[in-house]
Amino acid sequence: MSAELKGLDASRRGMMLGSAALLFAPMWLAGVAPAIARTGGAASVAREIPAHRLPVPDTISAELRPVVGAPLPPGWDAIPGSDEAWRSLVKATSEGAGPALEAIRQRLGVRLERSRIAGVPVFISTPDPLPKANRDRLLVHFHGGGYVLFPGEIGAGEGMLMAGYGRFRVISVDYRMPPDHPFPAALDDALAVWKSLLAEHDPSRMGMFGTSAGGGLTLATLLRAKAEKLPLPAVIAPGSPWVDLQGQGDSILANQFTDNSLVSFEGWVGAAAKLYAGSADLADPLISPIHGDFAGLPPAILTSGTRDLLLSDTVRTHRKLREAGIDAALQVFEAQSHAQFLTPFVPETAEAFGEIARFFDRHLAA
Amino acid sequence: MSAELKGLDASRRGMMLGSAALLFAPMWLAGVAPAIARTGGAASVAREIPAHRLPVPDTISAELRPVVGAPLPPGWDAIPGSDEAWRSLVKATSEGAGPALEAIRQRLGVRLERSRIAGVPVFISTPDPLPKANRDRLLVHFHGGGYVLFPGEIGAGEGMLMAGYGRFRVISVDYRMPPDHPFPAALDDALAVWKSLLAEHDPSRMGMFGTSAGGGLTLATLLRAKAEKLPLPAVIAPGSPWVDLQGQGDSILANQFTDNSLVSFEGWVGAAAKLYAGSADLADPLISPIHGDFAGLPPAILTSGTRDLLLSDTVRTHRKLREAGIDAALQVFEAQSHAQFLTPFVPETAEAFGEIARFFDRHLAA
Repeated sequence: MSAELKGLDASRRGMMLGSAALLFAPMWLAGVAPAIARTGGAASVAREIPAHRLPVPDTISAELRPVVGAPLPPGWDAIPGSDEAWRSLVKATSEGAGPALEAIRQRLGVRLERSRIAGVPVFISTPDPLPKANRDRLLVHFHGGGYVLFPGEIGAGEGMLMAGYGRFRVISVDYRMPPDHPFPAALDDALAVWKSLLAEHDPSRMGMFGTSAGGGLTLATLLRAKAEKLPLPAVIAPGSPWVDLQGQGDSILANQFTDNSLVSFEGWVGAAAKLYAGSADLADPLISPIHGDFAGLPPAILTSGTRDLLLSDTVRTHRKLREAGIDAALQVFEAQSHAQFLTPFVPETAEAFGEIARFFDRHLAA
Repeated sequence: MSAELKGLDASRRGMMLGSAALLFAPMWLAGVAPAIARTGGAASVAREIPAHRLPVPDTISAELRPVVGAPLPPGWDAIPGSDEAWRSLVKATSEGAGPALEAIRQRLGVRLERSRIAGVPVFISTPDPLPKANRDRLLVHFHGGGYVLFPGEIGAGEGMLMAGYGRFRVISVDYRMPPDHPFPAALDDALAVWKSLLAEHDPSRMGMFGTSAGGGLTLATLLRAKAEKLPLPAVIAPGSPWVDLQGQGDSILANQFTDNSLVSFEGWVGAAAKLYAGSADLADPLISPIHGDFAGLPPAILTSGTRDLLLSDTVRTHRKLREAGIDAALQVFEAQSHAQFLTPFVPETAEAFGEIARFFDRHLAA
């Protein structure tokens, strides 16, 4: 130990070691950490994060501030105790969004039609006008909502945002969900629509996207299409994709309560995972696509927020795509909780969809 | 209100609204949020994050686990009370890394030489062998350490990692620092080296990088070079760049104590900002480059971690580069705190530098 180091008090000495660890983790190199690992101690080290106050930062748009500053949604920790309770919840949540959909329709210039493809109900969002460059292009969309919420028109909301901000034609798949139709019903519907579209459309002109459960379903659909040797879309955009229904990602705990959207896996989110999987294994790659083989997947752009409970799901997916050699872009928005890049009409949402649209434009055939 | 909704208890109804807010923020659309904004209430809404336990996740490599699971560095909250105390700290922290540098030298095959460029001391890291494709390419590196720590050889550690993992020749600038030399001494040294290199090297074959303060200094150097109408490097890699020395980013508070590297802006980090700025304004774009004009900056790849105290600094920089139309890539590593992608010899570090090296290779002239 140097004379200077000896002359300092214990706290100062500790600071030095800590600061040096910043860049070179000398304790690690010196063998301390391997020693911890050998004793099995490392696996059990958990830290206590103290309670703290989290204000709304000045680093977001004025329009987004009320969303970031909103209190936790009351009931985030209420878990429906029966199929009937889930059904009531689903029905009620789907009823609340009429004004939001109408506002998107009007302000972003989007037409919405109901239809069916391969027997599966779909909603078709068409921007008016539809740019000439996008006339032969088509996007397939899967809505979020934990594989339980948002059947019907509300599920087309994100598709309408994409049509409005990105000026693409979008088909939103109103896939079957639990409690009546657990896994693999949603995936079966997704595949049925994809197969049907392949009969009439060039896959090089088709993209696929969705947020949260919709991002997970996008990836699961590709994994299954790959297994069935079907052509894949040319580009995808999984938004904060729910790819680990076991909830193993670090941000599931690190961003707990920091995220004011999903709040916690201990609430309805974790319960929805079990409801969706039914008797299947949560670790099945078609349920938790993070465990799948990403080789050969199309270029992907992923979106998340710094407070997102699924930030880890997002960055793990990004890393795994990159490891598989896929052209994968990541965008993370300041202070946003889960899926808040879908907040209509705030500048950050226009920016997020602008990026996605440019990425799609680059990868879709003309 | 529907009959179903009426039939549910208050908590269940709240849950519905909360869940719907997930995708469509109907409260926002319904005018509640604008009302909050009008009363100025939104600015003052802060949430209380409860204390919680943060374990080491299973979603990182075994080699990284001891780093992620390490306790807070003792002394993170000790702020040196005098110039002499800062000097003692700086000297002691620089002495601890000998074995780390030696290990990098041996395991990654890197030669290290001291030299001077334009009177500024530098360290030159050369991979052995140096790939033919990189013979005429050169990277300029600025070390981190809050603009206070890591003068001398230890500051070349990240440069050696880049030389080792990326197989590029790297010049690490041993720039002057406070307390003896506050802003703009570091920037003056950075500019002097850059100008001198321009006399002998094609800027299209040069890149620039650095982490934390080194990432901020990379951007500040470009802003000043741009103002002086000097050519810019072809590509940059700001790692978790310290671009906001006022500490306004959301993760500064959201990831406080979650980050076990910097821990908190309330500790020596915030003190270092003031020490560096001296009598200058912390908001000066040459001190806090996030306030600068990013138009015309070169392609950039940014690296951070989900627990990083400077995650917001990183993503704000990424977004601002993208808004300026720059080809900017973002990579965020699972569960890593500030600058932990520099931990030598763990798989994630090879991955991070592998990505940076590929990005550089794509943008540097042959």
